[in-house]
Amino acid sequence: MAGLFLSFEGIDGSGKSTQARLLADTLRVRGHSVTLTREPGGSAGAEEIRRLVLEGATDRWSPETEILLFTAARRDHLEKTIRPALARGEIVITDRFADSTRIFQGITRGDLSDTVDRLHALMIGVEPDLTLLFDLDPAKGLARATARAGTELRFEDMGLAFQEMARAGFLALAARQDRFRVIDADAPPDTVADRVWQVVAPHLVVGLPQLPS
Amino acid sequence: MAGLFLSFEGIDGSGKSTQARLLADTLRVRGHSVTLTREPGGSAGAEEIRRLVLEGATDRWSPETEILLFTAARRDHLEKTIRPALARGEIVITDRFADSTRIFQGITRGDLSDTVDRLHALMIGVEPDLTLLFDLDPAKGLARATARAGTELRFEDMGLAFQEMARAGFLALAARQDRFRVIDADAPPDTVADRVWQVVAPHLVVGLPQLPS
Repeated sequence: MAGLFLSFEGIDGSGKSTQARLLADTLRVRGHSVTLTREPGGSAGAEEIRRLVLEGATDRWSPETEILLFTAARRDHLEKTIRPALARGEIVITDRFADSTRIFQGITRGDLSDTVDRLHALMIGVEPDLTLLFDLDPAKGLARATARAGTELRFEDMGLAFQEMARAGFLALAARQDRFRVIDADAPPDTVADRVWQVVAPHLVVGLPQLPS
Repeated sequence: MAGLFLSFEGIDGSGKSTQARLLADTLRVRGHSVTLTREPGGSAGAEEIRRLVLEGATDRWSPETEILLFTAARRDHLEKTIRPALARGEIVITDRFADSTRIFQGITRGDLSDTVDRLHALMIGVEPDLTLLFDLDPAKGLARATARAGTELRFEDMGLAFQEMARAGFLALAARQDRFRVIDADAPPDTVADRVWQVVAPHLVVGLPQLPS
């Protein structure tokens, strides 16, 4: 695929959504075409599947059914939003992608890692060019998330032990795959944005040749 | 699993839904506990996924996304309806199961057979004890289906060539797996019901020991 495919991952409260928006703004100011998207969701069909998964009681779907629904949503997101944007040569920034399923469905609800990996290989098959993992002490993430209004009920429901398991899972994933860059997210947003830029900038295609000095 | 798990398959207009009801009635009269169900759907969650798949334009979902959604619905159907009924020792009759996905998503929309099979092995894994394939000349099925009011738009949209491909696919599946019984469905409902009974009766558990003669 042409373009550049970036995913932002991390526990809730890690600041990844804010950083995704900041990076999109920075890139656009510099003249890049950017598609900023998110999961679950990111296309009309995937947003409908998202509503189906997230509404109702948390035990409404088994972990296996939830994995299938998230994968269906991801397939639609990939076909309708991500691939077309990359084909146009754009930079795609997605707030969560398959690694979130690997952690939140694969690890924290019982060991379904192998199922998640095999399903991904069969039906998705694509990984981002670069994945930025926003790493933060879960207690600090919790404080940030609870300071936000009402949007992070799931986070609070799941508790600190859950977030610590998720953090450890993300770090273990990052250690195994070259596409990961771990960003220390325990700093003010501008400082974290600088760290993001240092990581992303080398991957940008230079549009015009440099003049000889 | 305890109980007996039967699926009824075939092209639209083959009479399988009528026969499923007739068999359920016959079994209940004879004192069996029966769960009569259908796909897509068959549980509260699966019915919601069914609505998501079937509403809107026919090209709204790619074949791959549709397969994932049908598999999510099947997983929910299996967990919430089929397995509990079998655990209670009931006879489960489902109007369509995985073979319909093998044919309608696996074959007729491009060759996704291998994807369908691998996804089934990974996320479902169960086959019926017995599958009754209601076989009929698609032209006769079309005539029956169009005589019904409004419920079979998809059938008519897809046309005769589509139904012939589906019939050939079902017969090829049946030839490869022992669990299939092909029922000649080109007869009045009572005659077909007799044929169904001849096939099913030998699989029924006799509840009481026979008295010695």
